[in-house]
Amino acid sequence: MMQTRTIHLGPLAIGGASPVSIQSMCNTDTGEVENSLQQIERLRALGCDIIRLAVPSAAVLPAFGQICDRSPMPVIADIHFDYRLALGAIDAGAAGIRINPGNIQDESGLRQVARAAAAAGTVVRVGVNLGSLSPRMEAQYGRSAEAMVQSALEYCRFFTEEGCQALKVSLKASSLPLTVAANRQFAAVSDIPLHLGVTEAGTAVSGSIKSAIGIGSLLLDGIGSTIRVSLTAPPEEEVRAALRILAVLGLRQNGPELISCPTCGRTRIDLIALATAVEDELARFAAAGRKLPWRKIAVMGCEVNGPGEARDADIGIAGGKGKGLLFKHGKIVRVLPESELLAALRAEMEAASQASDRAAP
Amino acid sequence: MMQTRTIHLGPLAIGGASPVSIQSMCNTDTGEVENSLQQIERLRALGCDIIRLAVPSAAVLPAFGQICDRSPMPVIADIHFDYRLALGAIDAGAAGIRINPGNIQDESGLRQVARAAAAAGTVVRVGVNLGSLSPRMEAQYGRSAEAMVQSALEYCRFFTEEGCQALKVSLKASSLPLTVAANRQFAAVSDIPLHLGVTEAGTAVSGSIKSAIGIGSLLLDGIGSTIRVSLTAPPEEEVRAALRILAVLGLRQNGPELISCPTCGRTRIDLIALATAVEDELARFAAAGRKLPWRKIAVMGCEVNGPGEARDADIGIAGGKGKGLLFKHGKIVRVLPESELLAALRAEMEAASQASDRAAP
Repeated sequence: MMQTRTIHLGPLAIGGASPVSIQSMCNTDTGEVENSLQQIERLRALGCDIIRLAVPSAAVLPAFGQICDRSPMPVIADIHFDYRLALGAIDAGAAGIRINPGNIQDESGLRQVARAAAAAGTVVRVGVNLGSLSPRMEAQYGRSAEAMVQSALEYCRFFTEEGCQALKVSLKASSLPLTVAANRQFAAVSDIPLHLGVTEAGTAVSGSIKSAIGIGSLLLDGIGSTIRVSLTAPPEEEVRAALRILAVLGLRQNGPELISCPTCGRTRIDLIALATAVEDELARFAAAGRKLPWRKIAVMGCEVNGPGEARDADIGIAGGKGKGLLFKHGKIVRVLPESELLAALRAEMEAASQASDRAAP
Repeated sequence: MMQTRTIHLGPLAIGGASPVSIQSMCNTDTGEVENSLQQIERLRALGCDIIRLAVPSAAVLPAFGQICDRSPMPVIADIHFDYRLALGAIDAGAAGIRINPGNIQDESGLRQVARAAAAAGTVVRVGVNLGSLSPRMEAQYGRSAEAMVQSALEYCRFFTEEGCQALKVSLKASSLPLTVAANRQFAAVSDIPLHLGVTEAGTAVSGSIKSAIGIGSLLLDGIGSTIRVSLTAPPEEEVRAALRILAVLGLRQNGPELISCPTCGRTRIDLIALATAVEDELARFAAAGRKLPWRKIAVMGCEVNGPGEARDADIGIAGGKGKGLLFKHGKIVRVLPESELLAALRAEMEAASQASDRAAP
């Protein structure tokens, strides 16, 4: 695996050794500046790094320009069909544009876009979608991962010839194995950063699963510089799902990770309620910007999977037969009635957070 | 990747060219036979193939035996610490036992278990958990994927020497990269089928994401013969999450796949509501055992991602500006008012399902 080049989307570095960034897309009308900016601010607070907006017509370009000026994060224009909208978005101050050259048939128009992006330092994401491969590529390579990779490489050469170095590539198919295969093949032959996403992922629940497998398996192999979880759901859900993927892979810390064992016939406490209560508590701490000095918190249902199996956790609670345990790094520090477990953990969280605050400069 | 050997868990084949099977674990008291069987029946109806029950003490063995006799799917005994419980479960008619030799210190006891399993044809899952590696393995290989793999291989040799061929292996760590690395390494050197799972996965939402990445990325590479999604949630949720993983990977068909595009600024219809309504409709069809002759159904939000991008779908609907499209294989078959889209799709589902029923023998 070669390390990718680093590109800059406004102030944000993508690729190279930069952290994997999270992207989402406004579902507001781009023409409605305040609405859009409010949504962008909500997404930023949740952990979103990059925002994309549709530019469906020239009429929204003035509003798009205002959003670019005022957005707290880099703005990307989503362009389809018409190269003049790409020129307009570059002109309006987009940090990046996302185009699918396969649906812009006008080659001289595309050349103008490349030159304008190179001149303005605008990042270009070259999107290749199995659904919009050129007939020539499809004839030569079939509807395959290779056709997607060869398409992307050809478009990247085209943009590079016109002076664009700040390129990203996305390769998508509604088939997960094909999406993963195409991204692996591309990463093996190019140093251009990859934007990972699974197209037409589906509703919040099934789409999150599909995206987790597609994006997660690539990230596990060190492939992917920026991600978007596409869901048929509000963009806030996309950001939450993206954060969960990065968190479970250890790529983004958003407070301590909660680990908990599955329920089974040995469980004698209401583990689901307890784990959910701890999860809520962690979310409240994160939302309030409060830090905890722990990497992992464990909620375990019995002595079998208790302190021993969770010894990687900085702190944890386990329920036994009527009694509860509070443990740190696998060592039991308190035995207490089961009903006091949650309160005891809360007290530890409070104390640890206050100690962290005092230690901070 | 070598193909694994095929083993038989009761009538169910695991490994080789067999479909990937789904496992869950009762959270009932094993001593309560009727309760446990009712939960098993609910899980079976959802798509579960294998059920595991805790055997925490000899007192539950008579009840466990009755459950084995009456269960509509193979039953596995979950054993910890005490080899005599494993002997009791084999005697009671378990199709398989799950043991973690790392937490059974008694080597001669373990040998008795191996001989009893070999004599009874009971499948043995050798569970290796990073949390319960032997001190010797940890000293030699560290707390690493290699230590987990070498532990598993050593235990498998031990069981093989006593005549057990029907072995499965699970390799788990609460770290996802370590879990995936250990399973990949094991699959490269052994033909013993792997049971995939991510330990201490977490609550329903974050646990599903963690399991989807861990289990899904291995399945994508052709690794894994049977899976369990461990959640701190009712086992029904585990089976649903497992089905989703298999479905998005094309490994299990549970009615047509729903694909839908993300919402964006171009969307002029309530795509979330529409996709959710179609998802509910598909769930109702599946629950009623009704078949649809389609692989994919698409719900698209606009003309950009509409019929063209969803041309892999057998049927789909797309919303535009006030008007709706019904399309089949990318070709528009009807233009109709947006408000009639869902009803039109429902009518197509009814007609197609009835035609399927007539065609069935």
